[in-house]
Amino acid sequence: MSKTLVFGHQNPDTDTITSALVMADFLKAQGVEAEAVAFAEPSSETNYALEHFQIDAPRVVETVANETSRVALVDHNEPQQSAPDIQDVTITHVIDHHRVSGFETTDPLYMRVEPVGCTGTILNKMFKEQGFEVTKESAGLMLSAIISDTLLFKSPTNTPEDEAAAKELAKIAGVDLKDYGLNLLRAGTNLGEKSDDDILNADAKNFDMHGKNVRIGQVNVIGFDEIQQREAAILQLMNDQLSENGYDLFALIITDVLESDSYSLVVGEDLSAFESAFAKKVTDHKVDLPGVVSRKKQIVPPLTNAYE
Amino acid sequence: MSKTLVFGHQNPDTDTITSALVMADFLKAQGVEAEAVAFAEPSSETNYALEHFQIDAPRVVETVANETSRVALVDHNEPQQSAPDIQDVTITHVIDHHRVSGFETTDPLYMRVEPVGCTGTILNKMFKEQGFEVTKESAGLMLSAIISDTLLFKSPTNTPEDEAAAKELAKIAGVDLKDYGLNLLRAGTNLGEKSDDDILNADAKNFDMHGKNVRIGQVNVIGFDEIQQREAAILQLMNDQLSENGYDLFALIITDVLESDSYSLVVGEDLSAFESAFAKKVTDHKVDLPGVVSRKKQIVPPLTNAYE
Repeated sequence: MSKTLVFGHQNPDTDTITSALVMADFLKAQGVEAEAVAFAEPSSETNYALEHFQIDAPRVVETVANETSRVALVDHNEPQQSAPDIQDVTITHVIDHHRVSGFETTDPLYMRVEPVGCTGTILNKMFKEQGFEVTKESAGLMLSAIISDTLLFKSPTNTPEDEAAAKELAKIAGVDLKDYGLNLLRAGTNLGEKSDDDILNADAKNFDMHGKNVRIGQVNVIGFDEIQQREAAILQLMNDQLSENGYDLFALIITDVLESDSYSLVVGEDLSAFESAFAKKVTDHKVDLPGVVSRKKQIVPPLTNAYE
Repeated sequence: MSKTLVFGHQNPDTDTITSALVMADFLKAQGVEAEAVAFAEPSSETNYALEHFQIDAPRVVETVANETSRVALVDHNEPQQSAPDIQDVTITHVIDHHRVSGFETTDPLYMRVEPVGCTGTILNKMFKEQGFEVTKESAGLMLSAIISDTLLFKSPTNTPEDEAAAKELAKIAGVDLKDYGLNLLRAGTNLGEKSDDDILNADAKNFDMHGKNVRIGQVNVIGFDEIQQREAAILQLMNDQLSENGYDLFALIITDVLESDSYSLVVGEDLSAFESAFAKKVTDHKVDLPGVVSRKKQIVPPLTNAYE
């Protein structure tokens, strides 16, 4: 039997990278030969976590069927966010905390989806249920994922379960939760190092919304000044990529992680669904989204409904 | 918030009925107002279990959106096997052990699918993880589901986890596993009480196989003699229902539960997919399937692949 490859979504964020590493360890503890891989290098935020706990980044791959027939998915289930050749392999496991959409298997599998803030929270529970040891390194990885996905518990996706898991994991990882958390989030907001394309696409995901091809990126910042100076160039790039890739809508959510506020840049032939989803007029391809921080909870559901 | 309705698939079998009852208890233990319902009266097998443990059958409903906005699914996830108005309600939970297909949500949910023989096995684990008490009645229900779905551990869908759960539950339920199990299985095989339509449809499910509309029924028997005398009438009914409902293929799997053997009646415009799935010639709409007992594991995957 070939080695099980474990991976999260395209444009990996901290939860995707760390959950792939932790899930590979979980499978190994069950006697399954497994390796974490990723579809890109880690972001600066994820690198902060990996360096802090001295863990190697997952090997970067483009496709998976060329080296295995069995895969385990973490932090996603929608095929258009997954390996480009996901249809050619057997999915044996899914550990996720997103909506379920477009996901199909021929055989029964192990699938665990919970409406919590982070895949790491589910993985921590799975380790405890099985009585597997959580090492300092694994704890640090799961903790980093929870901080990243919940923006240190400020996101509406945060649940009491995420917060309890994070407190427990911070002790095992030997870090001060708040200090470590703020440093991790800050590490992801340095725009100076990022190209316009990085800002736009490093965390972008595609969604099929009632037949519409919608791409939504999100970038974390501290303060909106720096990004506003780059808006014109980013909007130009969004328009180029919209027509190149045939998206119906392309939105970039810009989120101030300390103030828990966002605004969005948005392009597309017809912006009325976006306007009706948020009951706001889009002016010059911009719209304020006060209090919004979660793409999953505050952007995708209203926009999906608006396309219905 | 309206009451959460909990239900399994159309044409309820023992796992669907008992898992709905047990999952409703699980939700109540979590403080959620919940009620088990079903899309038909229980089968004679299921009634044996309900009567043995003195438990009322779930209320029978045709639709769900008329009385609630929130539902929990057990023992199925495919929409064509679910409530006819499943698109109009929010699915908050899925506990299942089948392939995942056609299942879509707008929001994250609690979804637990495991490749074990029975939903009851997963529910038993969930009760233990949460530290909820398993009553004699709940134990009897979960045990009955495991016996029914695994044919007393003879089905290839059976796993060591199912068997371990059944042993544990038999003790709590206060029954002898083998005696109770054989009585339960026998209770489901009395063809004399069943109309041709019951035999054909009481446990039938629809599957979308790469765009083909495939219906597969299964009936448990002890010995093939009695059913063979009714074959001509059943085949006639299958042909009628095939054209009425526009199925591409309609198969009835007839399974001897004590011998662990089956044969199939099959109708449809083009039987070549069925023939290639099982590498057997269909003669007079009949084909032997020696050693086959599981629709889920031995019929659906090869047939789905044959349509690819």
